[in-house]
Amino acid sequence: MPQVKYTLDEDEIPTQWYNVLPDLPGEPAPPLDPETHEPMGPEKLGALFPRTVIEQEMSQDRWIDIPDPVREVYRQWRPTPMYRARALEEALDTPAKIFYKYEGVSPPGSHKPNTAVPQAYYNKQEGIKRITTETGAGQWGSALAYATGKFGLEGNVYMVRISYDQKPDRRPMMQSWGADVVASPSDRTEAGRAMLEEDPDSPGSLGMAIAEAVEDAAKDPNASYSLGSVLNHVLTHQSVIGLEAKQQFEQAGVEPDVLIGCAGGGSSYGGISLPFVKDVLDGERDMEFRIVEPTACPTFTKGEYRYDFGDSAGQTPLMKMYTLGHKFVPPPIHAGGLRYHGMAPILSALVHEGVMDPIAVSQLDMFEDSVAFAGAEGIIPAPEPGHAVHEAMEEARRCRETGEEKVIAFLLCGHGYFDMGAYNEFLSGELEHVEYSDKAAAESLAQVPDVDF
Amino acid sequence: MPQVKYTLDEDEIPTQWYNVLPDLPGEPAPPLDPETHEPMGPEKLGALFPRTVIEQEMSQDRWIDIPDPVREVYRQWRPTPMYRARALEEALDTPAKIFYKYEGVSPPGSHKPNTAVPQAYYNKQEGIKRITTETGAGQWGSALAYATGKFGLEGNVYMVRISYDQKPDRRPMMQSWGADVVASPSDRTEAGRAMLEEDPDSPGSLGMAIAEAVEDAAKDPNASYSLGSVLNHVLTHQSVIGLEAKQQFEQAGVEPDVLIGCAGGGSSYGGISLPFVKDVLDGERDMEFRIVEPTACPTFTKGEYRYDFGDSAGQTPLMKMYTLGHKFVPPPIHAGGLRYHGMAPILSALVHEGVMDPIAVSQLDMFEDSVAFAGAEGIIPAPEPGHAVHEAMEEARRCRETGEEKVIAFLLCGHGYFDMGAYNEFLSGELEHVEYSDKAAAESLAQVPDVDF
Repeated sequence: MPQVKYTLDEDEIPTQWYNVLPDLPGEPAPPLDPETHEPMGPEKLGALFPRTVIEQEMSQDRWIDIPDPVREVYRQWRPTPMYRARALEEALDTPAKIFYKYEGVSPPGSHKPNTAVPQAYYNKQEGIKRITTETGAGQWGSALAYATGKFGLEGNVYMVRISYDQKPDRRPMMQSWGADVVASPSDRTEAGRAMLEEDPDSPGSLGMAIAEAVEDAAKDPNASYSLGSVLNHVLTHQSVIGLEAKQQFEQAGVEPDVLIGCAGGGSSYGGISLPFVKDVLDGERDMEFRIVEPTACPTFTKGEYRYDFGDSAGQTPLMKMYTLGHKFVPPPIHAGGLRYHGMAPILSALVHEGVMDPIAVSQLDMFEDSVAFAGAEGIIPAPEPGHAVHEAMEEARRCRETGEEKVIAFLLCGHGYFDMGAYNEFLSGELEHVEYSDKAAAESLAQVPDVDF
Repeated sequence: MPQVKYTLDEDEIPTQWYNVLPDLPGEPAPPLDPETHEPMGPEKLGALFPRTVIEQEMSQDRWIDIPDPVREVYRQWRPTPMYRARALEEALDTPAKIFYKYEGVSPPGSHKPNTAVPQAYYNKQEGIKRITTETGAGQWGSALAYATGKFGLEGNVYMVRISYDQKPDRRPMMQSWGADVVASPSDRTEAGRAMLEEDPDSPGSLGMAIAEAVEDAAKDPNASYSLGSVLNHVLTHQSVIGLEAKQQFEQAGVEPDVLIGCAGGGSSYGGISLPFVKDVLDGERDMEFRIVEPTACPTFTKGEYRYDFGDSAGQTPLMKMYTLGHKFVPPPIHAGGLRYHGMAPILSALVHEGVMDPIAVSQLDMFEDSVAFAGAEGIIPAPEPGHAVHEAMEEARRCRETGEEKVIAFLLCGHGYFDMGAYNEFLSGELEHVEYSDKAAAESLAQVPDVDF
């Protein structure tokens, strides 16, 4: 039973992003200054981000125009397809209908360029010449390199050294797109030099790479820093996914009963889900929002909802979010994009208000179902959305038991072409269960400043 | 300057393939029996291929219906996009217009499933349970695994041991799609066991893997063998590329002056080019056909047009084609898919008749322009179509000199996500020039039986 594909015409690519901020329930929790712990105005962020991005970060406008040059770049791979997973339904012998939106068709292979492209565009518009960022295994760095390449900007990617050395596949990709990729810690920044002095063989960390990228941008008036998740403007840019999905559900004549996606910082799930939130809050749509995180880094399911730093060094603004504490170092799992101590403030607020429901999934269960999904549908999921694949299949199996004809929808936010080593480890029986440590999280949470507003 | 994308609706996926055989100039050169050297009838191929495939191999019907279940699977990624490379034109400062058709959007990442899917379908229809094939780095094996998975057939892929060990990324992909992948030489066949007895540490070769896959299929009445290039029916299935391209050129309002593509066995170039051949022969269209091969394996530009075996062991039918001799072992280049001693008889005849023009390109030039292409267009070419990318850029540079506003079109038949190690080698200056050996080719050609018909 082959899949069914729902495509849109190019002129159905949204012309505006949706900004959920004016529609959020509860009181807004402003970002706080890391030193004074007072609410932080836009002016302080000016050293790091372009004006338009800061405006969007705080905007109360429900709709924000997508600039034409951004839509032109989107057109290289958008609209992205939505599929009905008929072969998977058959394999699971379920009465449920399963739909998935697939973002792996972008050149960098994930949803990440949906925000990298407008961020590069706004920087270009405001005369910035160079964008710095950090990357772990390279997913976000690739998207930023793609975007800076498209607008003729310099891109500087600080790549965690252990990934730089051990996962070299995305490095030449970033370089081919014109980016300068440096192993972090590097000798280019004070933060990096200090770290190298302490340990010349340091494997680096995402927190260190952030510190270097931020320092580099802050010291150069011609440079900006760019972040690929967590922040409000990132989720707004990603809303293009959900706005397309809405049209595709209409085309398919269905209303999903449950909408599933994975979350590390929350950008992909924010993208698919936020355009549906107002309808649900207004009682016009009955949809369950289910966010899947790894059991190895269970920010929502085991963390606390409180103010915390975005980086491990404690230099970013404090944000109200679910967190395991900024000092928490998640154990190594293959879904590197889900190894983050915090979570987007927008999704955090929606979980706190009971609008969205989190659930945690282990990487062994994830790979088992990702392989089954690939066998049925022919697309190999990245380990991050593999978590959503597993939960969607679990829900479909529950429907088999209950006989419910639910409509299950999930976001497949990227392909697994760069993760075949992990698949190989799983298929050859060598992949081990990775345990989250309550003790480590408690110790980390104890170091979070006791701040509220 | 962003690219322009030309898309088709799903109902514009062709409903028939185009078979060039009735339109070929010159006398047909039938395949010859490897032992008797007499023309070979369809009956002898029955042990290896399903009936419908053999009929298509010899058909004089210009149009062959694409079965609905095959079109249904095609719909997962077809129609594939065509782009106008505006950013590349700008980067090259050329008055030429550059268009490319992109087949990398298929789940296996290349044009190969265009034939793997119908081959699996016809086998399924005729009651075959299992398909065997060989693969080098895994491009073709992936496509076949994808296709057998779609139709619930067993797939057995004999993978050259050195690739099995050193390029493991495509192995779990094939396994995830349900295929059984075994390193060749293996102990499953007489041919493999004989080879292992001679050398237990043999790295294997494509010729050996073909011998094992053929033996395995020939001995089991429930199994068939499948080939991913060279043969007529393969090129016919691939015509879906050119038939779509024809519609997209119309949409763009252009007629290409030159149509460029790479060739190893000839399936991708056959796919894009054959639907235009009749128009050109009839004088209704003025288009130059340019086939690009690697200087390391210059079958067209240095080989001879004569009968030769398809495999290194000399067990397949003799085919009239350009060849460097079936014993020729091409030096190792990264474009593994272009390392083949022979060439599709259809393309060979067209080159021999002067309808198509071959040209050879070195891998260093290829990577240099592939990186530049990626920087401008955002898509990273596999090294095989990188050869076409280079020649298209050369042509555009010539237009810059002459001022000609030519329309240059080429086929980008796959992405380079699985070739980033090769890109890394090039970008770090470690990639070496690889030399073709006249002497080796002469020695190999001396071993080709002196047969004609």
